[in-house]
Amino acid sequence: MKALVYSGPGLKALKERPKPEIQAPGDAIVRMVKTTICGTDLHILKGDVATCAPGRILGHEGVGVIASVGQGVTAFRPGDRVLISCISACGKCDYCRRGMYSHCTTGGWILGNEIDGTQAEYVRIPHADTSLYPVPDGADEEALVMLSDILPTGFECGVLNGKVAPGSTVAIIGSGPIGLAALLTAQFYSPAEIVMIDLDDNRLDVARRFGATQTINSADGKVSGKVKALTGGQGVDTAIEAVGIPATFLICQEIVAPGGVIANVGVHGAKVDLHLERLWSQNITITTRLVDTVTTPMLLRTVQSKKIDPTRLITHRFTLDEIIDAYDTFGRAADTRALKVIIAT
Amino acid sequence: MKALVYSGPGLKALKERPKPEIQAPGDAIVRMVKTTICGTDLHILKGDVATCAPGRILGHEGVGVIASVGQGVTAFRPGDRVLISCISACGKCDYCRRGMYSHCTTGGWILGNEIDGTQAEYVRIPHADTSLYPVPDGADEEALVMLSDILPTGFECGVLNGKVAPGSTVAIIGSGPIGLAALLTAQFYSPAEIVMIDLDDNRLDVARRFGATQTINSADGKVSGKVKALTGGQGVDTAIEAVGIPATFLICQEIVAPGGVIANVGVHGAKVDLHLERLWSQNITITTRLVDTVTTPMLLRTVQSKKIDPTRLITHRFTLDEIIDAYDTFGRAADTRALKVIIAT
Repeated sequence: MKALVYSGPGLKALKERPKPEIQAPGDAIVRMVKTTICGTDLHILKGDVATCAPGRILGHEGVGVIASVGQGVTAFRPGDRVLISCISACGKCDYCRRGMYSHCTTGGWILGNEIDGTQAEYVRIPHADTSLYPVPDGADEEALVMLSDILPTGFECGVLNGKVAPGSTVAIIGSGPIGLAALLTAQFYSPAEIVMIDLDDNRLDVARRFGATQTINSADGKVSGKVKALTGGQGVDTAIEAVGIPATFLICQEIVAPGGVIANVGVHGAKVDLHLERLWSQNITITTRLVDTVTTPMLLRTVQSKKIDPTRLITHRFTLDEIIDAYDTFGRAADTRALKVIIAT
Repeated sequence: MKALVYSGPGLKALKERPKPEIQAPGDAIVRMVKTTICGTDLHILKGDVATCAPGRILGHEGVGVIASVGQGVTAFRPGDRVLISCISACGKCDYCRRGMYSHCTTGGWILGNEIDGTQAEYVRIPHADTSLYPVPDGADEEALVMLSDILPTGFECGVLNGKVAPGSTVAIIGSGPIGLAALLTAQFYSPAEIVMIDLDDNRLDVARRFGATQTINSADGKVSGKVKALTGGQGVDTAIEAVGIPATFLICQEIVAPGGVIANVGVHGAKVDLHLERLWSQNITITTRLVDTVTTPMLLRTVQSKKIDPTRLITHRFTLDEIIDAYDTFGRAADTRALKVIIAT
C-alpha cells in the first residue's frame, strides 16, 4: 500500500509499504477514506518528537471503513464506517477508567508516533472498541475528520479546561486550526467576548468570520495593554494558549485576570518563565492537557445537529498521491492561507 | 499605645504611636488581646514587600475586643470579642461578591501592609462587618489566632485548590507553619498518603506527629525519586508548595502525577522555570491564591468541634513588650524550633 513515511528530521516520502495486519485480539484494520495533516506532524518532521522513530507512517486523524477485526473486537464489523480518535485507549487501565485516555498505559497518542498512522491506504488501530467511533448515517466524512483531534483538543484542552462560561471574557492566542477549533467550541458557552490574537491578519479575518468579537495583531508587542483596555483593565477570565512558545505563554500571564484560567493547548518544545513573583497572589489556574477525546461523541452530536460546522476549517483538498504537495501547502500556511487540508486516500 | 513599627529593610522597633481612630463609617477599633508573627512579616522586614512603607505597624493576625465602631457597623458592638481576618473585605465590590475577598478593590491583604496592623495595643479594622468574626463563647483565643491567616491559607490555597480527596496521595513541600496548617486540614479529606518534605529534621518530626504518613528530608537532592518510589512511579495527585522558592516549585513539577495538581501556597519573590516542554501533555493543573478567608467560619467550627487543634502549632509565648525577642525566636526557627509564637498584647 502507499503510505507517507517519516525518515528522520526534514525527511518524508510517499512509499510502498506492506498492508498492516491484525497483531492483537483488540485490533482493527481500517481502510482509510479521508485523513489530514496536523501541526504535530510538522513537529515530528522537525525532529521535535523523540518518540517518533524514522520509518514511521505519520498521521493520527481520519475516517475509514473497517477492513478486518481481531477476535476480541465486538463493537465493529468489516464494512462499518469509523471515525479514528487520535488517542488510542484500552478502556481498562487506571487512567482509562478515570477518563484520562490520553495517558492510557498501552495507548494514548501512539498513532503516527509510536505505531504507524493514518496517512496511508490502511492503518492498524489497537484497542479498536474504545479508540474508534461509528460514523452516523449521512454524516459528512470531512467534518468528522476534524473530530479526530483538533475539535476535541481545542474544546477539552482550551474551552473546558479554561472554564469558558456565559458572560465571561476569553482570549485565544493563536488563530491556527487549533485556536479556531477553540473559538468555534467556546461559543457553545456564550462568553461575552472572545478576543483572538495572532501575527497573521488573514487568520484574524478568518477568526472574525468564525465568531471572534475582537481581534488583535500582536506584532507590535502591545497586545497585553490592548487586551487590558478591552476588559476594563482587568484582563480576561480565560486565556487559551494555542501556539506553544514562551512568548505566547507570557502574553497569557500578562492578560489573565485575578481568578482567571490559563488553559495551555500548545505543544511546547522549551521551558517557559512563570512569573510567580506576581502571580502567586492572583488566584489563577494554569492547566495543561493532552486531549483525552472524551468529548468526541458529544462533539459529533453538535456537528450532526449543525450547532457547529467544522468543515469551515478545511481550505484545501488533495489525494494521497499528492500528499507531499499537501504538506507543502499546510507548512506554508502564511502564504497559502491553509487551515486544514483533506487528503482522500 | 505601643506598636511594632517597620522602619525600612532590616529595621523594626517597639514604639509609642497614637491610638487609631475611626476614619470611615465601616471601621472598628479593636483592642488587641493576642497576636502573632507571620512569615510574611519577615518578608516585609527583608524589604521584599513594596506595598509596605516604612512607618507601618506590622501584623495581620489576632483576636481582640471591639473598643468602638463607626456608625455604619451593624454586626459588632463595643465589648464583643472578635477574630481578625488577615483579609479585609468590603463585601460589595465585584470580587467580594464572587467570594474572592483577597482581591477586594478597597481591601484584600492591606492590614500590616498598606494600613497599620495588629502587632499593637489597638488596631483600626476597615469594613469591620465583613472583616471580623465573632468569637464563640468558650473558644480558645490562641487557637483562633491561627484562624486569622495560616489555617485558611493552608486550607484554601493548599488543600482546596489542590483537590485533596479520599484515597489520594499528597505531598507538602515545606513543613513550616503554613505547610503544617495544610497537613492538619488535608486530613479532613482522608487522603491515602501525605508525604511531608523539608530540609529540617525537627520540622519533619513535628509533621509525623501531626499526621504525615511519610517524611522526606530533601537535603540530598533525591526527593523526586523517593516520592516516585513511594507512589508506584506515578507521582502524587496533589503537590502543595509551601515554601516559595524556585527549587521547591521545581520539586512539585517533578513529583506531580499525570492528572494531578500543583497548589502553590508559597510567597514567591522571583520567577520560576515552568517545564512545559514536558508538562504540556501531563494534564496537570497549577493554582495560585492569596487566601480569601471564605472558609474561616467553617474552620472555626472544626476547631470548636475539636476536629482540629491548631494550638499544636504554638511553640512560644511572649508579651508585646517582648516582641523583638519574639521576632528573633520566630526568625531563627531552625535553632529555636519555633512554629507559631503567641504575643499577648
